[in-house]
Amino acid sequence: MIIEPIDGGVTAPQGFRSAGVACGIKREGLDLALIVADRPASAAALFTTSRAVAAPVIVSREHLERSSGTACAVVANSGCANACTGQAGLAAAREMAGEAAGALGCAAEQVIVASTGVIGVSLDIGKVKTGIGRAAACLSRDHHLDTARAIMTTDPWPKESAVSVRTAAGSFSIGGIAKGAGMIEPAMATMLAFLTTDAQVAPSVLRRALVEAAQVSFNAITVDGDMSTNDTFAILAGSASGVNIDETTYPAFADGLKRVCQDLALKIVRGGEGATKLVSVRVTGASSTGDARQAARTIANSLLVKTALHGGDPNWGRLVAAAGRAGVPFDIGRALVKIGPTVLFRNGQPFDEAAPLAAEYLRGRDIEIAVDLGAGGEQEATVWTCDLSADYVRINAEYRT
Amino acid sequence: MIIEPIDGGVTAPQGFRSAGVACGIKREGLDLALIVADRPASAAALFTTSRAVAAPVIVSREHLERSSGTACAVVANSGCANACTGQAGLAAAREMAGEAAGALGCAAEQVIVASTGVIGVSLDIGKVKTGIGRAAACLSRDHHLDTARAIMTTDPWPKESAVSVRTAAGSFSIGGIAKGAGMIEPAMATMLAFLTTDAQVAPSVLRRALVEAAQVSFNAITVDGDMSTNDTFAILAGSASGVNIDETTYPAFADGLKRVCQDLALKIVRGGEGATKLVSVRVTGASSTGDARQAARTIANSLLVKTALHGGDPNWGRLVAAAGRAGVPFDIGRALVKIGPTVLFRNGQPFDEAAPLAAEYLRGRDIEIAVDLGAGGEQEATVWTCDLSADYVRINAEYRT
Repeated sequence: MIIEPIDGGVTAPQGFRSAGVACGIKREGLDLALIVADRPASAAALFTTSRAVAAPVIVSREHLERSSGTACAVVANSGCANACTGQAGLAAAREMAGEAAGALGCAAEQVIVASTGVIGVSLDIGKVKTGIGRAAACLSRDHHLDTARAIMTTDPWPKESAVSVRTAAGSFSIGGIAKGAGMIEPAMATMLAFLTTDAQVAPSVLRRALVEAAQVSFNAITVDGDMSTNDTFAILAGSASGVNIDETTYPAFADGLKRVCQDLALKIVRGGEGATKLVSVRVTGASSTGDARQAARTIANSLLVKTALHGGDPNWGRLVAAAGRAGVPFDIGRALVKIGPTVLFRNGQPFDEAAPLAAEYLRGRDIEIAVDLGAGGEQEATVWTCDLSADYVRINAEYRT
Repeated sequence: MIIEPIDGGVTAPQGFRSAGVACGIKREGLDLALIVADRPASAAALFTTSRAVAAPVIVSREHLERSSGTACAVVANSGCANACTGQAGLAAAREMAGEAAGALGCAAEQVIVASTGVIGVSLDIGKVKTGIGRAAACLSRDHHLDTARAIMTTDPWPKESAVSVRTAAGSFSIGGIAKGAGMIEPAMATMLAFLTTDAQVAPSVLRRALVEAAQVSFNAITVDGDMSTNDTFAILAGSASGVNIDETTYPAFADGLKRVCQDLALKIVRGGEGATKLVSVRVTGASSTGDARQAARTIANSLLVKTALHGGDPNWGRLVAAAGRAGVPFDIGRALVKIGPTVLFRNGQPFDEAAPLAAEYLRGRDIEIAVDLGAGGEQEATVWTCDLSADYVRINAEYRT
């Protein structure tokens, strides 16, 4: 099996076309994305686990259930989350799906809808319909970058990724786009991520692969610890490659999917609001993966850790403090803290004299932090985060003004 | 029963003297505090629940156990947390207590020690001893403000509070000082708070009152969600007032104690790093107090909520999003969100047209937010927090440099 990065984003796989257009929901820029499968595709999706669920999430969940895991299209807008908008919002989300279905000649239940942007503002369905008409008229395999742009809110750049997977049974590809910059601590998926593949995958298998991939990608990142009302991570599987995903080819498919998901997830963190550094927090020595993940997440969400990283301050004591309050077994007398290759704390003893070395390392943009909990176990987990800058505060203090 | 605020801070109660001096642990300013009871006092304390416990916390816990809840003094330094400092740190904390005991003529186990400042740096015990000598030489009832100053780190101002409690059985007073500006989400107590009273209280009763007061004061605040390694909240009860705290007088004592603790706790939030607003988050309609507290804490720690408040943006959708991800029952169709007196969301419907009114209200420095979870219950909880400013980032990115 060989997995190689390729160009083409969400339309890298054969059998998919897309468009990204402007319809005036945002003050400027592209704000409506349409991804279409040439023939009905297998589909699976993960959504926010928040109890404050946005209207498009409710509608997409219903549609996937009614269609038994098949879909023809994903339609998404940016600039308005259509969340906390009551019955009117629910009606708007249904109308959005219906309009796309009409333009494409498929059933409404075969359309997945998604929205991202300000919460609590009504979605202007007239603008959305205009956008859908425009997008349907210019579907192509060349508009993948515009499609990625059309789902951006405060994202500094569009995020796409694709791989080609070669197996003994033949080659197929997996591609996708994602957005996310703030309100990022997905508990099922990220703000929005849409993937496609030309491998033939049964809906149940697709779902299994999706859950596995999310666990080590979108569910392992955090920008600010704020889970969204609109998190949606969906994949459409056509069959244009002729490769069927069975028990033999599943590992290759799962690996390829993880690769694309991790690439997109790390792009989300790197493009986090105000972020200047990508930080991987690896926690080892835990009794369970869950413990390791919880400790890594606590460290990755600590404001004191994130601000120290922003300032390039090797303040490892904050790493110990965060690990100590994570609520999982932690033995300070056997714990280990490393920033990059430099050990700063081991077996209860500080090596603060090594701080200048770590400070030098922290000047880089890609930072690795390792914490061993010393709890006797051998489980581990990695969570990716970014630093916290004054720009994050500026962006979010002025978001609606 | 009448409870009235009085001057005098930690030495407002009779039978206590204190001092705050400089001994060079911090680059400048007072950094060593000593609080002394004229006669052995009942004592109780709550400490951090972090698994990364600082040396002075370990020593103070031992001392209170050995002395069966009596103490003569509290000695505390700022500028160095003496945390993650291994066996040497533990020895330094013991030496610190021993030096104070020697200067005051009491047993070492009757001294409570505390430290606050940078984690992972060795405590210069020579400087501490010099400071203890100096402080012991100038103990007085007039130095309470200097004592409060001597435990400050990034605190913008000293925090003290005291009340006089008049009951049918006689009058007594309760006073105290506290510090805290960052690494504030106490799970047992705050960074440092030292209280005194001249009411005669048995150690077990004192402990009960302490736990109750902490629950609605220090344990109900958050600046940045980062629990400290050094949290210590201790109280000494002398008996100079002649008032004994029994079942009859307990309610008055407990109320007075809560009053002082809440006052100090709110002063900590108001003086949070970079804070410009004091925000109370009241959650109602929960099935249990625990649920209410968890939802209030999730809202109070949301970076998106805190930055919106900083920007004066009535972005109530972020309040719904935070409540929805808090992991407790939440019914979006019956929930209610208010900023000040203005309803912005009720029964699934947004009232975004009222946003300008809420924006006007958010210009103030004292903000009240109310969220009803609509979960059918009648339990509630309040958590106090502050806004998140670019100054918080600046302070913490540059803390050690």
